[in-house]
Amino acid sequence: MMQTPLLLSSFIKRAEQFFPDKLIISRTAEDTIHRIPYRDWAKRTRKLADALTKLGMKQGTKVGSFGWNHHRHLEAYFGVPCTGAILHMINIRLSPEHIAYVINHAEDEILLVDDNLFPHLAQLAPMLKTVKHYVIMGDSKEVPETTLPNVHSYEALLDAASDLYEFPEDLDENSPAGMCYTSATTGNPKGVVYTHRGIVLHSYALGLADAMGIRERDVAMPIVPMFHVNAWGIPFAAVFFGTTQVLAGPGFNPALILDLIEKEKVTITAGVPTIWLAVLKELEENPRDISSLRAIVCGGAASPKGLIRAFEEKHGVPFIVGYGLTETSPLVSLSVFTSKMESLSADEKIDIRALQGLTMPGLEVRIVNDDGVVPWDGKTMGELTIKGPWIASEYYKDERTAEAFKDGWLYTGDIAVMTEDGYLKLMDRTADLIKSGGEWISSVDLENALMTHEAVFEAAVIAVPHEKWQERPLACVVLKDGQKADDPMKKELLDYLGTQFAKLWIPDDIVFMAEIPKTSVGKFLKRVLRKQLSEQLKEV
Amino acid sequence: MMQTPLLLSSFIKRAEQFFPDKLIISRTAEDTIHRIPYRDWAKRTRKLADALTKLGMKQGTKVGSFGWNHHRHLEAYFGVPCTGAILHMINIRLSPEHIAYVINHAEDEILLVDDNLFPHLAQLAPMLKTVKHYVIMGDSKEVPETTLPNVHSYEALLDAASDLYEFPEDLDENSPAGMCYTSATTGNPKGVVYTHRGIVLHSYALGLADAMGIRERDVAMPIVPMFHVNAWGIPFAAVFFGTTQVLAGPGFNPALILDLIEKEKVTITAGVPTIWLAVLKELEENPRDISSLRAIVCGGAASPKGLIRAFEEKHGVPFIVGYGLTETSPLVSLSVFTSKMESLSADEKIDIRALQGLTMPGLEVRIVNDDGVVPWDGKTMGELTIKGPWIASEYYKDERTAEAFKDGWLYTGDIAVMTEDGYLKLMDRTADLIKSGGEWISSVDLENALMTHEAVFEAAVIAVPHEKWQERPLACVVLKDGQKADDPMKKELLDYLGTQFAKLWIPDDIVFMAEIPKTSVGKFLKRVLRKQLSEQLKEV
Repeated sequence: MMQTPLLLSSFIKRAEQFFPDKLIISRTAEDTIHRIPYRDWAKRTRKLADALTKLGMKQGTKVGSFGWNHHRHLEAYFGVPCTGAILHMINIRLSPEHIAYVINHAEDEILLVDDNLFPHLAQLAPMLKTVKHYVIMGDSKEVPETTLPNVHSYEALLDAASDLYEFPEDLDENSPAGMCYTSATTGNPKGVVYTHRGIVLHSYALGLADAMGIRERDVAMPIVPMFHVNAWGIPFAAVFFGTTQVLAGPGFNPALILDLIEKEKVTITAGVPTIWLAVLKELEENPRDISSLRAIVCGGAASPKGLIRAFEEKHGVPFIVGYGLTETSPLVSLSVFTSKMESLSADEKIDIRALQGLTMPGLEVRIVNDDGVVPWDGKTMGELTIKGPWIASEYYKDERTAEAFKDGWLYTGDIAVMTEDGYLKLMDRTADLIKSGGEWISSVDLENALMTHEAVFEAAVIAVPHEKWQERPLACVVLKDGQKADDPMKKELLDYLGTQFAKLWIPDDIVFMAEIPKTSVGKFLKRVLRKQLSEQLKEV
Repeated sequence: MMQTPLLLSSFIKRAEQFFPDKLIISRTAEDTIHRIPYRDWAKRTRKLADALTKLGMKQGTKVGSFGWNHHRHLEAYFGVPCTGAILHMINIRLSPEHIAYVINHAEDEILLVDDNLFPHLAQLAPMLKTVKHYVIMGDSKEVPETTLPNVHSYEALLDAASDLYEFPEDLDENSPAGMCYTSATTGNPKGVVYTHRGIVLHSYALGLADAMGIRERDVAMPIVPMFHVNAWGIPFAAVFFGTTQVLAGPGFNPALILDLIEKEKVTITAGVPTIWLAVLKELEENPRDISSLRAIVCGGAASPKGLIRAFEEKHGVPFIVGYGLTETSPLVSLSVFTSKMESLSADEKIDIRALQGLTMPGLEVRIVNDDGVVPWDGKTMGELTIKGPWIASEYYKDERTAEAFKDGWLYTGDIAVMTEDGYLKLMDRTADLIKSGGEWISSVDLENALMTHEAVFEAAVIAVPHEKWQERPLACVVLKDGQKADDPMKKELLDYLGTQFAKLWIPDDIVFMAEIPKTSVGKFLKRVLRKQLSEQLKEV
């Protein structure tokens, strides 16, 4: 067979040859929507490659991007890596210190920055050690007022560049193409480097009929940001398959998302549960026509069953839960149905949708505990480990590699079980698991159960130290407006759990609070909770 | 990213882990149908690897298979290559001389032979120089009576083998996995070697929603034989995705095919036009319920529009034409619809279905003539060239490599045009193209037009030498039963063409015949026709 390398540049060629008229619908500001056919997008992408090369970009140069979802960011997704350089997608929601850390650690030499984010980034400039150029992504050809040197307008650079730039065809497919850092809960963010080969194979997986099935006739709108794990790879796959893309731009909100779905006839969209909870609320208050949707993909945290049920049953949209990590490109699994599941009851189907689902073809998963690889029995918990061609093999220049990458497997730090049908079910983070009297108690299971109670807005369950049992669960509950945080409520919630779990699992106490502390991406900061509350444990 | 090699053994693991109860439905004789779950098939495949290893199979050993579509052949599809050995799928329809040639040329050491084909092969044994063992694939554990040494029963070998055989995980993904030889029209067949990487990537392509979309819930029945270009890769993809497979066994016929579709609720099937013409005839004489079918894939020769229309409009089954070669694994393109084609008229849709279609994601095609790469205008003819990771880079130990593989491209010998939408349309074989007065005339276009005339059963158009015009077209026509082969008919057919083509294209004469000579796979033997008829040319 020919030794044709798997390269992202082949995606551009395919889009411009076969789908020149298909659109990228890009919202760059409040009321500005650009509609750019792939023909023009490909030319602009070549111009970007030429322009950045003139600024000094070479093979191996790191170029940071600091922006929302829009066509310029998509140009950077290809215009940088297809030259052999590396696009570092910076999570704009990291703390200022972490933003400076990741730019310095990656050694970014050029930063592509959204015009409306530039003031934020400019404040950090004194901390940045390697950056030589700032390129402002916006509709204007002028640069904003600034005391920084080497600030360029993206559009002005493109005006001066050539669209005849030819991407090299002889890159090694294992060359780095992109980088993302994890949103760390402890310590500094950890860097993951994506290769051309990894992204190409991941894109094939997204196109499989048994996965997301992304195809030419889709209108795909990733709500997940392009600065977060490649927007789950959707922009790459969409270019590969000639799919219409909707990129929702800065400051989007539930109303805007629904307007775009209705107006652009979006067929598939993807984001985290908090987004879909807010979209559902907006949809019920101000109905829209979302009948164009054939799937909502949801990941990043556990999806409440009520949310799944509302979209599936009330609005007729399959709500597919997925699992992935920055380290996994990210797609690992999706809660798609196999043929035998089609005959299940509506309730059983919702149960399956809420799982993390079936492993993608090409990956291998294993759940391991101290006894070795656990059986697929839906009960035995262990740490999820993953292997495959789009799974990271290390953290970029980071000693913490040794903690997560062992014997050729990624150790995810997620505690899971595998159902008998081979569907992944996440139970907890290793750090949050409660080890009580030799038994493992899943904080996530308890939280999900609490959050099905009508009085509960959100709930986090943490381990607190205990003399006899080593650890015991403690529930932290935020009640809905109008609910009373008193002893009868505490008893009601504990009784409610008592009907669903063994006695050992029932939290020793419930603490009512106004808000649960969260990370920048909306995950519970249990480390902080544990510190606050460890003294509250009562004897059983 | 992890350097996980793309290996076929990962498909077995996936099938046995995730889809152990899904079935391989295998017809091994007239009335014998086996239903084997992937769980057992995987065990038997490991046993086969163990058994053949005990017979001396090592990494790089060539093992020939000489059989129909059934579960044992599918075991060989994996049990041989997953060890690092190479499965040579021998086309049982080659001439005896060519069968001996390909076995000797490939240096097959073990032959897996269907019980009902063994007498045929045994006659050739004296000509075979490298074969050390014959393994008889059949339901019996006895070996047939024979004077040959080292003849084994497949089932008896499996009984004595271990299902704990572990496939190596450290094979190079570029290791050879399989071999097929082309069905040569001139000279000896040419060998093509498939690699693990090529087959894995080809399998991803088959699973894409925009390609065949093969998935777990499908019931896939490749009618194309497993001895012919990997049965178009369908058996590999089916194992990868956990798809139910129907393998139709020896001596199948249109009635059997329809019975299997109806009984097993086949959703996707694939074969050459002559099969579907015969199936259509049977279907109209003896109706069956084929409503389970979501697609018929057809390739290997041009599909008459009447055939496409009958399945699409009368029976409601999408009839998707494809293009591929032994050298291309084989899938190159499929006549699937892009979104904008959905609004075309029924007739326009049939026109698109009849094209060779859209190039698969991952491949690159180019049409070249003496002026270079031709534009996509639907008119300018040139030779089709292809590049990509599942395209051969050479013929196995064959000097003819230099004729077909140039500058990193496969030169297919097919004359084609590309429509403005990037859909491939085959016009002719380079050898059959008629070059008349500086213009290229497509014999295939003229044949297709003739075959739409109600009096015509089949038609071949060939070039005959001409003093003034270099070459002129001559039509060879087989009329339907009851039609009169006389001068008025000749005039009617020429007039019929006259309404569709420029004057220069109209054949100088029509020769009526009882049958058109064909190759073993049903293609017109135009070389033979030309020799027979070259003296019949009349002056214009």
